[in-house]
Amino acid sequence: MRIEERLGQMGIDLPDFATGPYYGTTYGKMKPHHIVGNVLFLSGHTPVRNGEVLHPGRVGSTVTVEQGYQAARQTGINMIAGMKYALGDLERVKGLIRCLCFVACEPDFCDVHLVSSGCSDLIAEVFGDPAGIGGRATIGVQSLCDRMCFETWAEVEIT
Amino acid sequence: MRIEERLGQMGIDLPDFATGPYYGTTYGKMKPHHIVGNVLFLSGHTPVRNGEVLHPGRVGSTVTVEQGYQAARQTGINMIAGMKYALGDLERVKGLIRCLCFVACEPDFCDVHLVSSGCSDLIAEVFGDPAGIGGRATIGVQSLCDRMCFETWAEVEIT
Amino acid sequence: MRIEERLGQMGIDLPDFATGPYYGTTYGKMKPHHIVGNVLFLSGHTPVRNGEVLHPGRVGSTVTVEQGYQAARQTGINMIAGMKYALGDLERVKGLIRCLCFVACEPDFCDVHLVSSGCSDLIAEVFGDPAGIGGRATIGVQSLCDRMCFETWAEVEIT
Repeated sequence: MRIEERLGQMGIDLPDFATGPYYGTTYGKMKPHHIVGNVLFLSGHTPVRNGEVLHPGRVGSTVTVEQGYQAARQTGINMIAGMKYALGDLERVKGLIRCLCFVACEPDFCDVHLVSSGCSDLIAEVFGDPAGIGGRATIGVQSLCDRMCFETWAEVEIT
Repeated sequence: MRIEERLGQMGIDLPDFATGPYYGTTYGKMKPHHIVGNVLFLSGHTPVRNGEVLHPGRVGSTVTVEQGYQAARQTGINMIAGMKYALGDLERVKGLIRCLCFVACEPDFCDVHLVSSGCSDLIAEVFGDPAGIGGRATIGVQSLCDRMCFETWAEVEIT
Repeated sequence: MRIEERLGQMGIDLPDFATGPYYGTTYGKMKPHHIVGNVLFLSGHTPVRNGEVLHPGRVGSTVTVEQGYQAARQTGINMIAGMKYALGDLERVKGLIRCLCFVACEPDFCDVHLVSSGCSDLIAEVFGDPAGIGGRATIGVQSLCDRMCFETWAEVEIT
């Protein structure tokens, strides 16, 4: 099954990054991706939905693990939109290389991996095994821009 | 001298990641590595030894610099085990590209580089100069999963 | 216009990393860069100027956003010096791939992207569009070595 069909079946409607600047014009000079050979390097992707930050705050106090998971899932959707914007066709995705995940959290919150799984589970469901399963590490951080609770930094192998 | 011989001389017994899943089954959908061309991208490696987290806590309060160094050294051993699992033969390691190191620490603890050296010193001792010396950055973070005090994110050039 | 000329016009005098060890001898075993194919992987670069840390402390308390921006700008200058040291000739820079930026800050400081722009704006001004504009993510961290308020971790496409 084609990836776009799979997304349709899952009821996921990708944002179209071709119609607007990557996360607006307020973040400074940056671009959404860079391709060298068969590696797509994605810029930071975040839990923005319809122009709003999903579940802003810090996991462990103002954001629950389940909300963090949903924010990470939205980030995964945006990552796929970022891949489509970069590649034109999602069939060019050979496999996720790695995702380095950032969770804004309280110092005593150590279940950061449960939050990241919102992103990993989504990518795995869309692209299947093995293409949708990548390397991963998750770090609990002090803060992210605009009080986001999650952000990811990924590389993708492409054809 | 072959790398395996060198490890034997140093009294290091690598864990065998081929006989069990990478850090168990509780961390979510992820894989231990991905190879593109002659770059091995390693997933996050951590200070686990015989199934237990070595020196959990935060450097600057519940974990000393020396304990953090030992945790980072154990992480280096696990990284080498991860390279062997990925490559079959450690002789395929041409050189460490970079390690991005994470130290869970208190806000006023700024000697994060002294902790990371536990990992860098070990890799340098095993692979020698220049293959065992890579680029590096170390950041003090809020938290890591399972109260780990150290984690690393590395790329390796291979033949 | 050649990059070196542009730097001269901007009044920027690059440090020469060929005449002294990369950030001294106290940081442990690491190297400043590694090249694989046409990717230059840079080690962590920091806001050091004439051997001193520029604006040490934490953004949101002891360091202002403007000071953080200046520290990030100095880091960008050092990154360019690191590219020159790695490549010999800055004309070999085809384009910035990505910068992962770290800002040591207070937990309630969420304008980390405004700090990073000190680095991105400088690189963009020196190399122009598109070569000087890369992917980016910025995370607010607990601490960096020597009380630095900024550090960056970059990849560069080269010819």
